Amino acid sequence: MVKVGFLGAGFINNVHADILLRQESVCISAVVDADVERAAALAARTGARVCPSLQALLESGVDAVFIAPPNALHAEAALAALAAGVHVFCEKPMATSLEDARRVRQAAADAGAIYQLGFNRRFAPTYRFLKGLVESGELTPRWAHIKMNRGELEKPSWVADASLSGGFLHESTIHILDMARWLLGEAQEVVCRAAQGCHDQLDEFAAIISFGSGVTATLCSCAHATWLFPFERLEVFGDHAAAVVEEMERVTYCPGLGRTAVTHDQAQLPMPEKLGYVEEDGLFLKAVAGEILPAVSAEDGYRAEELVEACYRAARTGEPVRLPL
Amino acid sequence: MVKVGFLGAGFINNVHADILLRQESVCISAVVDADVERAAALAARTGARVCPSLQALLESGVDAVFIAPPNALHAEAALAALAAGVHVFCEKPMATSLEDARRVRQAAADAGAIYQLGFNRRFAPTYRFLKGLVESGELTPRWAHIKMNRGELEKPSWVADASLSGGFLHESTIHILDMARWLLGEAQEVVCRAAQGCHDQLDEFAAIISFGSGVTATLCSCAHATWLFPFERLEVFGDHAAAVVEEMERVTYCPGLGRTAVTHDQAQLPMPEKLGYVEEDGLFLKAVAGEILPAVSAEDGYRAEELVEACYRAARTGEPVRLPL
Amino acid sequence: MVKVGFLGAGFINNVHADILLRQESVCISAVVDADVERAAALAARTGARVCPSLQALLESGVDAVFIAPPNALHAEAALAALAAGVHVFCEKPMATSLEDARRVRQAAADAGAIYQLGFNRRFAPTYRFLKGLVESGELTPRWAHIKMNRGELEKPSWVADASLSGGFLHESTIHILDMARWLLGEAQEVVCRAAQGCHDQLDEFAAIISFGSGVTATLCSCAHATWLFPFERLEVFGDHAAAVVEEMERVTYCPGLGRTAVTHDQAQLPMPEKLGYVEEDGLFLKAVAGEILPAVSAEDGYRAEELVEACYRAARTGEPVRLPL
Amino acid sequence: MVKVGFLGAGFINNVHADILLRQESVCISAVVDADVERAAALAARTGARVCPSLQALLESGVDAVFIAPPNALHAEAALAALAAGVHVFCEKPMATSLEDARRVRQAAADAGAIYQLGFNRRFAPTYRFLKGLVESGELTPRWAHIKMNRGELEKPSWVADASLSGGFLHESTIHILDMARWLLGEAQEVVCRAAQGCHDQLDEFAAIISFGSGVTATLCSCAHATWLFPFERLEVFGDHAAAVVEEMERVTYCPGLGRTAVTHDQAQLPMPEKLGYVEEDGLFLKAVAGEILPAVSAEDGYRAEELVEACYRAARTGEPVRLPL
Repeated sequence: MVKVGFLGAGFINNVHADILLRQESVCISAVVDADVERAAALAARTGARVCPSLQALLESGVDAVFIAPPNALHAEAALAALAAGVHVFCEKPMATSLEDARRVRQAAADAGAIYQLGFNRRFAPTYRFLKGLVESGELTPRWAHIKMNRGELEKPSWVADASLSGGFLHESTIHILDMARWLLGEAQEVVCRAAQGCHDQLDEFAAIISFGSGVTATLCSCAHATWLFPFERLEVFGDHAAAVVEEMERVTYCPGLGRTAVTHDQAQLPMPEKLGYVEEDGLFLKAVAGEILPAVSAEDGYRAEELVEACYRAARTGEPVRLPL
Repeated sequence: MVKVGFLGAGFINNVHADILLRQESVCISAVVDADVERAAALAARTGARVCPSLQALLESGVDAVFIAPPNALHAEAALAALAAGVHVFCEKPMATSLEDARRVRQAAADAGAIYQLGFNRRFAPTYRFLKGLVESGELTPRWAHIKMNRGELEKPSWVADASLSGGFLHESTIHILDMARWLLGEAQEVVCRAAQGCHDQLDEFAAIISFGSGVTATLCSCAHATWLFPFERLEVFGDHAAAVVEEMERVTYCPGLGRTAVTHDQAQLPMPEKLGYVEEDGLFLKAVAGEILPAVSAEDGYRAEELVEACYRAARTGEPVRLPL
Repeated sequence: MVKVGFLGAGFINNVHADILLRQESVCISAVVDADVERAAALAARTGARVCPSLQALLESGVDAVFIAPPNALHAEAALAALAAGVHVFCEKPMATSLEDARRVRQAAADAGAIYQLGFNRRFAPTYRFLKGLVESGELTPRWAHIKMNRGELEKPSWVADASLSGGFLHESTIHILDMARWLLGEAQEVVCRAAQGCHDQLDEFAAIISFGSGVTATLCSCAHATWLFPFERLEVFGDHAAAVVEEMERVTYCPGLGRTAVTHDQAQLPMPEKLGYVEEDGLFLKAVAGEILPAVSAEDGYRAEELVEACYRAARTGEPVRLPL
Repeated sequence: MVKVGFLGAGFINNVHADILLRQESVCISAVVDADVERAAALAARTGARVCPSLQALLESGVDAVFIAPPNALHAEAALAALAAGVHVFCEKPMATSLEDARRVRQAAADAGAIYQLGFNRRFAPTYRFLKGLVESGELTPRWAHIKMNRGELEKPSWVADASLSGGFLHESTIHILDMARWLLGEAQEVVCRAAQGCHDQLDEFAAIISFGSGVTATLCSCAHATWLFPFERLEVFGDHAAAVVEEMERVTYCPGLGRTAVTHDQAQLPMPEKLGYVEEDGLFLKAVAGEILPAVSAEDGYRAEELVEACYRAARTGEPVRLPL
């Protein structure tokens, strides 16, 4: 029986709770949230008890903790849990600074406990389909065109506060940066232009990312583009071939000139499967059980943060930024 | 009565011929094409006669000439026509080098004849709808994301030969560069990465273009992405607003969060209207009649060529290129 | 201040509650539900108290009641409320037999209280757009093609029980029958074929409905077609014109051959606006205030039930059924 | 070497000619068309000679003839060819009356030559995909919903003349009737309502067709619905499964509740492959070579005509019509 605690009782930990409640091997035992009512509601429906603090939660005998407070609190929470020997499932981002990301990566390496990051897109059927095309050799990416306009910096309210979010790129953009790296390999260079459009922080970005694999990607990420479908889109072009993921709803592949294009539409899938949460939670439990390594590692978290940092740095200086930093 | 000659008897001049045949004020009188059969066919159905050379055509008493041979021949043909005092409608690009573009611009300024460039997208209902949103103030562009993957460098066969096409960016990409400038203002800086993917020339480009208006655009242009719809897409983001043109088929506008998105679908329009040819030809005739200035000027042609040159230069050097060159 | 009670504390009355909570002139005072926990939850968040029975609710001093138990209970509840002089907002269907529909219609005519039926599609922006085309004379319907495959007879569980639902046509199909009548006029004849496909009741229907306006409509309604978008679609054809509503998500209108088709996509609208609930509730409050007549009348409810009955009768006999019954 | 003649030099025989020109075993030797210029153009590009009449063509030594004049001439032409021992590929419809269809069926049975009908949809990748689902048992059709609004009775001009076309249902609607029969089995009963909407013949039809397989289909067919995509759509519903063909462009299959829907989009396929012409011509050549039976038989042609006749008869009488007639 794995005893699980939740740091944060908002939307995403409620999703994880629903998934874990279906696992016989899991017992949800503790919940912490600054919003006591929210904590109580999650505790009530999972049979857990409310703890007054993360420290109390870690001392309550939990084996693992799902970390989902505002971004700026992720790193310290993960460090505390790892120090206590508690397994960590941490929502993205790993941290809101490269220095903190390094500390978490080191702690994860040193700890006896495992650390897994919540890059759920890796487990969404759309992106997995694309990954399968690449891994099987069916599609060899040569060039890419990426848009990540998810977000309006309003809900939840803290995302508007860069001191809590770490800045807009730490919101959904970091997901697509991880996706790009996962699909296209390690980045070598980032060029970026950014501006402050409609919010009191940089909220529109244009970047060119060059990968060691030879692939180059454009990236547009904008916090004020409405939610016009698809606000998230990743297009990969091969040798007379194209694949497109539109949000985690649809993936289309066309293998050549004059050929049939096949679309897999996941609109009807239950949300937790569609967004990869069921799969990532299952893999986390396997990692906790010692059967596999974490499906998304601390190294993955660090590299994504490095890409975020490279974008901000390139935007600030106007100069290309080489990676690794 | 305007006497019109055609230099080139391929697809596009046949389209122009169909449009002009419906104009009572126009008489198609002369055709030149290296492919004599093609010239004869166009001549036969328009009542024109075949001329052995451009020079013969210009001396045959035409008032205007539609220039549509391979790209590398555009500039010299236009210069000859303008020198002969013959009005010019020239398919894009104006030239295949900035130096030639400058010469044509100068000649157009000096000539008594008018010069209009075939940037037909400006007259396609999709792009005109978008332009209307911008001009009316309904949508103030802040950021843009552009893809131009039209083309496979196979048809017609000469487009594969960079010495005839001027290079891939002179094909359809120059259209979208003109569009961007038309919608977003003069460009100030271009960053570009390019590679040779599947053909024997640079055939994949990633660029960031910064405009004086404050708008920044990403541009992906790739000659090996199949014709998966939409291979041409221009997305403009305003203050919680988004507009998307997908080829010259559809334009969608969403004015804000939680609002209705409206799509105008032009799929059923006759091709010459849908692609703007009818409108541009009508405006050319008006310009020839002295009623208006050319709808797409030599300056427009030069600026588009300058953007092409800036992309190639930025790709070659790896450095940002400032405009004007 | 209008004191409102809820009979039923499931999904739809929670939607109504959210809307009414934003109305200063409304006080939610009483809730009844066979599921006491559900009643308590709705009561708690609206400041109402739980009543043990409809009778108790009606005697508690409410001015109006929202009736949303399983279908078979609608008629008796409405009759009781009207008898008590309490205004009624009743979810569809009005009743599950024509005889009961007649009784409710009569009671609504005799009562001092108003009766409004929850045919929310009449207020969904998609269908209202279509209605506007028809009312303005822009589109004169001549023929129609309708699909209503919403539903899988599983959720909520009682819909699988024809003795509670009144039969599959009383579920979502009655909505589209009301739509057809609202848009196309009174029906004159129904031909229908039906079968028992995948459930223990008639669950697949093919009908031809002829309207007094001269319009004829095909109708397919099937309870086992998955939720493939669009499971609900109404197409109306005019004189070289076509309009299509796809669920309450999108409406497209094409006014003629070779013309632009315009789509209004409501995907981003908040659900209560998109599905017409906000509008219908606002109109109900106005009717309660005596400012207008009920936006969907008891006569409308009766006519829809009549169409349902005509379909079942025509399917049973194999003969065309003339209306009114 | 198979010597082929063309009766009719319009669009469709030009498509067949392009396909046959790529076959080394085929020689196009003769062309007949009332429009002599059109005949000459086709003859010129195929190396054939123009014949003054069908009789002359049949006597010119051709092995096979492609019959594509206006519908009302199909039957007599086929009878003449079969009588002359010439193989027949006849565009649909087989005839414009049931009596004529019977005569052709009989002649085809008696002749030494083969007879194949041009129901090309059977060879379009979209419909073949659907047929494959059904034949493999993956999808067992239970119910269907069909729209066939192709056509505006304007182009070519003779289609507006019911004495030449045989009536609107002989235009594209007969294709979908054949499709329905091919997919769903022999029809047993037809109910139909029709009206004269915007042309001087019955031009809008609503039908319910019941098949021996137990499947019932609604059919809407309307000659004034513009060309709004998709004007042709066939939806088949199984036990919690749905498949949709939209024109010969796209086919979508969803195998169950909460499952992925897969779309095969054929937009990029060359038209002759996409519409099944290449395949049907290849099969015709095999049948001529004696390797296989005709892929679409005279019996198929007769049954489709019978369905057309049943629709007209049911519309005229208002009574259900049983099949076979």
